[in-house]
Amino acid sequence: MTADTIGLLYIPLGIEDMSVTRVFTSDNCTPVSEPILAALNAANAGMAPSYGLDEYSTRLEHLACELFETELKIFPVATGTAANALALSQITPPYGAIYCHEAAHVMVDEAGAPEFFSGGAKLIAFPSIDGKITPAQLDGAVAYAREMGVHHVTPGAVSLSQTTEWGAVYSQTEVAALCDAAHQHHLAVHMDGARFANALARLECSPANATWRRGVDVMSLGATKNGALCADAVIFFNSALAHDFEQRRKRAGHLWSKTRFLGAQLLAYFKDGLWLANARHANAMAAALERGLAPIRGVSLLHPPEANELFVILPEQWVKALETEEFHFYRWGWPRKDGVMIRLVASYATQAADVEDFIAAVKRAATC
Amino acid sequence: MTADTIGLLYIPLGIEDMSVTRVFTSDNCTPVSEPILAALNAANAGMAPSYGLDEYSTRLEHLACELFETELKIFPVATGTAANALALSQITPPYGAIYCHEAAHVMVDEAGAPEFFSGGAKLIAFPSIDGKITPAQLDGAVAYAREMGVHHVTPGAVSLSQTTEWGAVYSQTEVAALCDAAHQHHLAVHMDGARFANALARLECSPANATWRRGVDVMSLGATKNGALCADAVIFFNSALAHDFEQRRKRAGHLWSKTRFLGAQLLAYFKDGLWLANARHANAMAAALERGLAPIRGVSLLHPPEANELFVILPEQWVKALETEEFHFYRWGWPRKDGVMIRLVASYATQAADVEDFIAAVKRAATC
Amino acid sequence: MTADTIGLLYIPLGIEDMSVTRVFTSDNCTPVSEPILAALNAANAGMAPSYGLDEYSTRLEHLACELFETELKIFPVATGTAANALALSQITPPYGAIYCHEAAHVMVDEAGAPEFFSGGAKLIAFPSIDGKITPAQLDGAVAYAREMGVHHVTPGAVSLSQTTEWGAVYSQTEVAALCDAAHQHHLAVHMDGARFANALARLECSPANATWRRGVDVMSLGATKNGALCADAVIFFNSALAHDFEQRRKRAGHLWSKTRFLGAQLLAYFKDGLWLANARHANAMAAALERGLAPIRGVSLLHPPEANELFVILPEQWVKALETEEFHFYRWGWPRKDGVMIRLVASYATQAADVEDFIAAVKRAATC
Amino acid sequence: MTADTIGLLYIPLGIEDMSVTRVFTSDNCTPVSEPILAALNAANAGMAPSYGLDEYSTRLEHLACELFETELKIFPVATGTAANALALSQITPPYGAIYCHEAAHVMVDEAGAPEFFSGGAKLIAFPSIDGKITPAQLDGAVAYAREMGVHHVTPGAVSLSQTTEWGAVYSQTEVAALCDAAHQHHLAVHMDGARFANALARLECSPANATWRRGVDVMSLGATKNGALCADAVIFFNSALAHDFEQRRKRAGHLWSKTRFLGAQLLAYFKDGLWLANARHANAMAAALERGLAPIRGVSLLHPPEANELFVILPEQWVKALETEEFHFYRWGWPRKDGVMIRLVASYATQAADVEDFIAAVKRAATC
Repeated sequence: MTADTIGLLYIPLGIEDMSVTRVFTSDNCTPVSEPILAALNAANAGMAPSYGLDEYSTRLEHLACELFETELKIFPVATGTAANALALSQITPPYGAIYCHEAAHVMVDEAGAPEFFSGGAKLIAFPSIDGKITPAQLDGAVAYAREMGVHHVTPGAVSLSQTTEWGAVYSQTEVAALCDAAHQHHLAVHMDGARFANALARLECSPANATWRRGVDVMSLGATKNGALCADAVIFFNSALAHDFEQRRKRAGHLWSKTRFLGAQLLAYFKDGLWLANARHANAMAAALERGLAPIRGVSLLHPPEANELFVILPEQWVKALETEEFHFYRWGWPRKDGVMIRLVASYATQAADVEDFIAAVKRAATC
Repeated sequence: MTADTIGLLYIPLGIEDMSVTRVFTSDNCTPVSEPILAALNAANAGMAPSYGLDEYSTRLEHLACELFETELKIFPVATGTAANALALSQITPPYGAIYCHEAAHVMVDEAGAPEFFSGGAKLIAFPSIDGKITPAQLDGAVAYAREMGVHHVTPGAVSLSQTTEWGAVYSQTEVAALCDAAHQHHLAVHMDGARFANALARLECSPANATWRRGVDVMSLGATKNGALCADAVIFFNSALAHDFEQRRKRAGHLWSKTRFLGAQLLAYFKDGLWLANARHANAMAAALERGLAPIRGVSLLHPPEANELFVILPEQWVKALETEEFHFYRWGWPRKDGVMIRLVASYATQAADVEDFIAAVKRAATC
Repeated sequence: MTADTIGLLYIPLGIEDMSVTRVFTSDNCTPVSEPILAALNAANAGMAPSYGLDEYSTRLEHLACELFETELKIFPVATGTAANALALSQITPPYGAIYCHEAAHVMVDEAGAPEFFSGGAKLIAFPSIDGKITPAQLDGAVAYAREMGVHHVTPGAVSLSQTTEWGAVYSQTEVAALCDAAHQHHLAVHMDGARFANALARLECSPANATWRRGVDVMSLGATKNGALCADAVIFFNSALAHDFEQRRKRAGHLWSKTRFLGAQLLAYFKDGLWLANARHANAMAAALERGLAPIRGVSLLHPPEANELFVILPEQWVKALETEEFHFYRWGWPRKDGVMIRLVASYATQAADVEDFIAAVKRAATC
Repeated sequence: MTADTIGLLYIPLGIEDMSVTRVFTSDNCTPVSEPILAALNAANAGMAPSYGLDEYSTRLEHLACELFETELKIFPVATGTAANALALSQITPPYGAIYCHEAAHVMVDEAGAPEFFSGGAKLIAFPSIDGKITPAQLDGAVAYAREMGVHHVTPGAVSLSQTTEWGAVYSQTEVAALCDAAHQHHLAVHMDGARFANALARLECSPANATWRRGVDVMSLGATKNGALCADAVIFFNSALAHDFEQRRKRAGHLWSKTRFLGAQLLAYFKDGLWLANARHANAMAAALERGLAPIRGVSLLHPPEANELFVILPEQWVKALETEEFHFYRWGWPRKDGVMIRLVASYATQAADVEDFIAAVKRAATC
């Protein structure tokens, strides 16, 4: 029920010398993807208007509309937490409920950002093994709130994570069903797309089919984990929902002055399919990990990886051996009797050799 | 998992003609206890200073110190929700976690007031059958938060309800154990005493022994349910914790101008043990209900009543029959297979005849 | 630029013995008007549904609609600060500006309640001698905000006080002009009617003509200063504006459980024109004070009283003499060279003898 | 009384082609200073721990302590608005007052960010011609608040801008006097150092002497306007004041994952005195503008520039001529009878040729 940080305690002291290899802790340890860094350098030409009036910002809006095949509004910000909290604050009243998964980043990993930005909304969390929430869960919670009336928080919004925090990917049908249920309750739907590219690569559909055509109203689209220096974005598929959103972004300190450097990153991210190429590589590395690990006796997987994350249960001894060999990863979840669960995150920067080394190391541990 | 309101849907239309009899819905349906009404009338003599500078407010502070045998600070407000949310906002940072029971009034029945007053704190709820939370639950949640570090809300405060929302009363030992655990984690402890008098009557100890001597730092003391017109109070047993609290009360719109009428109510409430007499009567009526109902075949109780509330499971048919006879009560909790749970609340105004009538009606239903 | 409190420092120590006479400090020092107290006593008959489901609440809504000749929504609360802050939070986004007078109660006397309830809105204040604000001031401020764009708070709402904090009463034409200007800027208009009855008595028009027919969207109607125990109300003349308002009231701790006692107060307040009778008496007492004081050489008035408040400039010596004679009033405003300004507030409880005594005392001081 | 944006309306449409020359609108239109861009590229080597656990963050803390000669805490963030609002929220209670200048960035240019982050604090603004506030202004405001007691916001913090928004620089003595006054009132002092390097270059003293040795408790140090891509920082000179600050930063979405790229920018900014060299150049360009403009008949200056900003009053005709020649600058302040005020901001990227061209153009306008 956690995220990147629970395992920080386990990072070996030599982390400062972390090389490019053997890192499965998180995709936010990655460097900047080369084409994005090149774009940042290229954007550094002379003076440019600030606060979103630069040409990069304008071009980004056009490109995003084209990519998603609709008239959307896109607002770049520095972090996924900012994107999520700003998006939710726009669609939830301060006295509202936000329905999400119990392991959702917005629930456990954002230090109360959604509560802060919304002015006190309450996150109500549903359990499941794979990080997905269902229409039935939503229906039940809304029915309860309606019965409670003025004494309870008012149903406000739904937030789903695509990819989920447990490495699963909602099918288009699942997204549509959840959005339909939400809309029947007059709730807007937010998609936390911190790893949206990985989900898209899995779904093999258009960005439009993965989002607004299924009913998503607003999304956080993360680029940082998949190759950017520092760039996430809030995208409203319904322009009316974006009313005054630039005010919220500004008063949260998330309107950069030199916006050209946000625009340049995202333009490069989308250009020539870089985002999908990076995501496909990450997903492929995760799949390779599974192929190598699953057959090993003593290894079990929480479920097959659908994007770039694996949750693997191993004997405690093996985990210690892997840590000793300076593989970097997080122990994950609550203590369990059948071993220790670890999370392995592959990224666009993960190399095939890393994967092979890791599999080999597990095999060595298995034969000790 | 709920409170007074979930059942509002079930209130018969004739509610406007609700007579003094047959009401077990909630103790907040009660009229004003006669001595309190008399005090209000008596306080209406001429001009008086406003905003707490009146003599009633001064005398209340003195009396409360005497009653609780310590140098406390007492701040009357209009509602229990205000008392709870103000108290919690004083001891929890906006980025903090408030640990409580999943059925706590602050969790489900205050429409997000604690989140609002605290500036976005997050309530983290523990389950249990009787509404009590334990040191072990607290320890686990705090350990998790400490591991998560900056990514999670910071442990902020603990809130327990005495009487609990499931009708149980913490023993002095239980309160002390929970407070000790909280203090070891450097967390302040809030007691939601909306029905504190009922608990005190059960515990048969001094107010001091029931609260600050066990480690409680701040409490909400409810009088409205037990006989007042409109008076609850926040009591700080540690004066340092009350720093600037009057600012919070004022900016929440909870500083009355004619404070004499709050002071007068609470003075009368405490005078000559009225609060305990009222509570004892309510508890006795609940006990009488139990004595009458428990032996009836087909009736089961969630647990024996420890204060003035009973949770009784009956066949659906019986419940309908009771409703038809214009007994007022709430159906309670989630749907269950073994019948329908109803909540019965006795109050200082409940009459022995009400209790007898109700028992007789259940017996009639049982024999149909 | 202040309110009831600045002068608290000057209250003689014997305030606890304040008799019914000689009190001109504030109308919130008054006792409860007899018909209202009688209504409270009468409402104390048996059990009654809570949280606004009682018959008093229902009757109040009907009566208020009749009185104001429109389909309004009325929400009783405990204090004027609560009424103001709740009303403003409903019509102003958290990133919005609220335009008001620099001496407005919402600006200087509510300890930041509007900022709190709105989630951080900014009050922008205009100066004037009589407490009124003008369309020109509003136009200028809105034009500035529009030019500043995303960097400034967004125009959100307008709040005017009727009676103003400097004792003046907006004419119907003035209210209409301000509302028109506000609506042209797409801003809703709030009227702080803490002393609305006094203004209405002055205007000699219908409640409708004084409010929504002139363009007021929402008002705080105060009854406490004019005879209630503790009752103010938020009134929405546009039902759409009241959407979910009951949620805001509840989560602010301002939904009483025993609402019958709020309803009963306000029903009595409006019944048989009690509110106007009380206000007319207060205004008449203020006029009598002016008639007696104005001719005295050495006395000057800030402006003629239009409701129940006078601002009088006297030599320092005289003020001291009046204080020595145990007349109660506040010194007011900033230090000035032409003497000391005091505020005199007449109320429904002010007696002609008080007025005569005061005038006589000033005359004595003048001849010393 | 405004900032960068009021003039946005006047930016010629061809802004997208803005070349490196002729730009005096704002120092936030500048590109990234070469050494900083080089550092960003160099930091892009392989994987690195995230969330501040990277070596750049560690080295930054050490370097900042060395530079300021004390044990400080430094927290990089993306924008000056974030730095200011986070810093103020740390030292001001939600019911507090923040005292600042009426033209302060926190007052008029941050869209209510301080109100938002603090949970509703109120900014109380003082006027002056040069953007400085004085101990006497502070004393008066605090005295008023203390008299008002619970009815007013509680004195919370002081914020001064160094350089001020009107281009002036507080002397060390002035800073010390203001800090002393604040501390006598038990208020913490925040310095908005968006252009701190420009002030430091003017003062020719050590960073320590310009800040904590004079009494500053916390500062926002801006690097973006003076050469960074996107980097400002909150610096606490009193570690105790920084308690839990990382929680506030995180829940505001201002904790980057790839913190190495913030650390790398600031390390390069401080290295080899780049920040001072850049600031000195900017200041010199402003001085050159003054030297060239002041002697021209028909030109008047608000006051001599003390850092990198000039406020120049010119005949309307001349201003139009300059705009036609595609010089970029903002018209500033309220309409005036003696001409049009424009703001000229020099930056590290301003070239001597720009300055000469501008002066020549004004001379041409003067002789038309």
